[in-house]
Amino acid sequence: MIPTELIRKKREGEALQPDELKFLVSGYVNDDIPDYQMAAFLMAVYFQGMSEPEMNEFTSLMLHSGTVIDLSFIPGIKVDKHSTGGVGDKVSIILAPLVAVCGVPVPMISGRGLGHTGGTLDKLESIPGFRTDLDIDTYKKIIEKIGLVMIGQTKNIAPADKKLYALRDVTATVECIPLIAGSIMSKKLAEGIDALVLDVKTGSGAFMREKDRAIELAQTLIRIGEAFGKRTIGFITDMNQPLGNAVGNWIEVVECVRCLKGENVPDLMEVTYRLAGAMIYLGEKAASIEEGEKIARRAIESGVAYEKFLELVREQGGDISFIENPSKYEKADVQEEVYLETEGYVEAIDNYRIGLAGLVSGAGRKNIVDTLDYTAGLVVHKKIGNRVDMGEPVATVYGNDRQGVQDAAHRVREAYRLSNNNVNAPQCIYGMATKDGYADYNEST
Amino acid sequence: MIPTELIRKKREGEALQPDELKFLVSGYVNDDIPDYQMAAFLMAVYFQGMSEPEMNEFTSLMLHSGTVIDLSFIPGIKVDKHSTGGVGDKVSIILAPLVAVCGVPVPMISGRGLGHTGGTLDKLESIPGFRTDLDIDTYKKIIEKIGLVMIGQTKNIAPADKKLYALRDVTATVECIPLIAGSIMSKKLAEGIDALVLDVKTGSGAFMREKDRAIELAQTLIRIGEAFGKRTIGFITDMNQPLGNAVGNWIEVVECVRCLKGENVPDLMEVTYRLAGAMIYLGEKAASIEEGEKIARRAIESGVAYEKFLELVREQGGDISFIENPSKYEKADVQEEVYLETEGYVEAIDNYRIGLAGLVSGAGRKNIVDTLDYTAGLVVHKKIGNRVDMGEPVATVYGNDRQGVQDAAHRVREAYRLSNNNVNAPQCIYGMATKDGYADYNEST
Repeated sequence: MIPTELIRKKREGEALQPDELKFLVSGYVNDDIPDYQMAAFLMAVYFQGMSEPEMNEFTSLMLHSGTVIDLSFIPGIKVDKHSTGGVGDKVSIILAPLVAVCGVPVPMISGRGLGHTGGTLDKLESIPGFRTDLDIDTYKKIIEKIGLVMIGQTKNIAPADKKLYALRDVTATVECIPLIAGSIMSKKLAEGIDALVLDVKTGSGAFMREKDRAIELAQTLIRIGEAFGKRTIGFITDMNQPLGNAVGNWIEVVECVRCLKGENVPDLMEVTYRLAGAMIYLGEKAASIEEGEKIARRAIESGVAYEKFLELVREQGGDISFIENPSKYEKADVQEEVYLETEGYVEAIDNYRIGLAGLVSGAGRKNIVDTLDYTAGLVVHKKIGNRVDMGEPVATVYGNDRQGVQDAAHRVREAYRLSNNNVNAPQCIYGMATKDGYADYNEST
Repeated sequence: MIPTELIRKKREGEALQPDELKFLVSGYVNDDIPDYQMAAFLMAVYFQGMSEPEMNEFTSLMLHSGTVIDLSFIPGIKVDKHSTGGVGDKVSIILAPLVAVCGVPVPMISGRGLGHTGGTLDKLESIPGFRTDLDIDTYKKIIEKIGLVMIGQTKNIAPADKKLYALRDVTATVECIPLIAGSIMSKKLAEGIDALVLDVKTGSGAFMREKDRAIELAQTLIRIGEAFGKRTIGFITDMNQPLGNAVGNWIEVVECVRCLKGENVPDLMEVTYRLAGAMIYLGEKAASIEEGEKIARRAIESGVAYEKFLELVREQGGDISFIENPSKYEKADVQEEVYLETEGYVEAIDNYRIGLAGLVSGAGRKNIVDTLDYTAGLVVHKKIGNRVDMGEPVATVYGNDRQGVQDAAHRVREAYRLSNNNVNAPQCIYGMATKDGYADYNEST
């Protein structure tokens, strides 16, 4: 096969055959196909898309480029969740122990912060001693022992995706649904899951700003999941403001601990309970998502979810004394309240700017070698629909670099838009997608 | 500037600023921008095109990446012709001496065969001793002395185009009008011309199969030419069958010599006279294209064009005894007549197949290191509209490799389609494009 002919075929909008895709992907991994031909191919895919069989084959090729973990020795239906990423999205940290304690094993391989969004791995690593760089044997042992495990992508998981992702990053071919879907699903399918719940975020702080594109991505991910025999459900959720109030690493962990102990942060817990309900349902420990939600609420109220979280922290090397007494943690040197110059109701928050504010405060990476300031970040006190009176701060920024904190505070200030009129709080969950279609909660009620 | 941001900008359909294009093209030539980023950019250009200012800037950057030859020391308006390439397109060999002898200096830098098409350089080099690899000083001296010169692209001419063309060739980004136009014009503008006539071919043997695309390319080339202060005229001509009868190298030269001596090969000479008329008009040696054509006809009839050709061959090291007595030339060992199984009128010829037949007979290159068999090729005896009776050959194939000749004969056979009904000979010239628009000869009469 001639690489140029395959690039041309995709350029002309034709679907590639399985052996043709294999030639390209395997050839790329083996360095037989050079970066420049793969780059041209990826850009052609950006414009021409992929058919469903192509996407399945593409995912399969990336999946089988590395280890596919087998967890069949563990009883029960293993269910994971994947979020497309957002600002203040700390759901996994509450969700994984919550679902596990309800009897559904949760094998979770997470990622780091990307662009303006945070990453579960970075947040977990802010817990002193907590290790996420575990090998696959340890991963298997921990989930067998305590019913959940949370690690980072190892070298053996989908190496083709790793190489392709690095190329996409420098060739402006990241924002492409078939490529995003293949990348996500090849990693998730390698975890050893039986079913998957997706949280596809939309809004100013999401990678898919438009709801239609988020639904399209959810449908694509679900079709791939189902094609690989994994029951898959997706929710389209709001990312027009931070989820919960904290944005950062350790300060997000603290918010999670409060929620695990029963505090209700409304939007955060609404999303967490819905995802938990779906996971418990897919794990066949509830007859419906609604029943699953009820089971999850009881697991929070009874304190067993919090106990499971302590067990996870202990098992992965973390010092639980910081969880039991967060005030032990070192404090950020600098703290700045953010005031606006007017008063009114919060009409909109540019959540991309909030994400960047978190990043520049020290909680994120400007480049690949940056180290994180775990105490840095921000807490928003005012969310969409809230009243802001003169002299009331809308947020507090934390960090150890005075200039970074000031830069962050400025960005937060610019992100808020007030109105003189009452504003409704936005919906947290827009709808649910399954293999049979998409049900919008507004349209269905 | 960040290359990825520029790729993204083009991907989103925005026009790049001059400094942004310069960053990319200069960076690519200096190896600061890697192949894979340029490949992604080129594919984005394939889908999103370029604005007129972008194309001019792109052409200028490639032009000024190398030497721009100054021929202002030579009196008169220097005019060249460029053809987009075809099968049996030998026009330049007749045209250059013909126009030069009419008083218009012709500085011509030609190319080699590409894909299924032949190249002027290869044809000229089939003349024993004829050299095309002359340096720029010699180029200047010859045109000053005899009013014309025909060489190949030197290393110093548009090196950015050379590097980009090689990348386009392996990334399926050749067939893209802005990239084609920039490549053609950067080389032509480097020659030292004052005006340019374009022969944009369309049909089954052309790179632009559809007439609309050929017109679009012609308009694009003209706009660039005029933006650089060069008067530019373009003709859209037929490439649905070979031009003239010979396809190869030496056998095309022989056909040219016959035409220069006054033989009328109708389609070939119709195109040649029209292009000559336009060049003589642009060179201000005629008040109109029509008058230019008349002057050209007289220069053929009087024999001065032929004399000028002999002068060119002599000046560039060729042995004119072979021109004066072509039967001196070595003969091909193998010769095969091509017969069809039916009779009728030639309705269509797949000219791409004819081009490939020429190639496999030995007249073209299958890969970059192939040497040419100058005596190989074919002569078509039957063109569109001609009657083919049982037992009449439609073509003769020549070569020195029996298998290649048989393969070629098979391809020629497959290329012909006969009809029981009378078929009209196709138009040779479809219309003329200038900076003011396109006039179709059918619609205007």
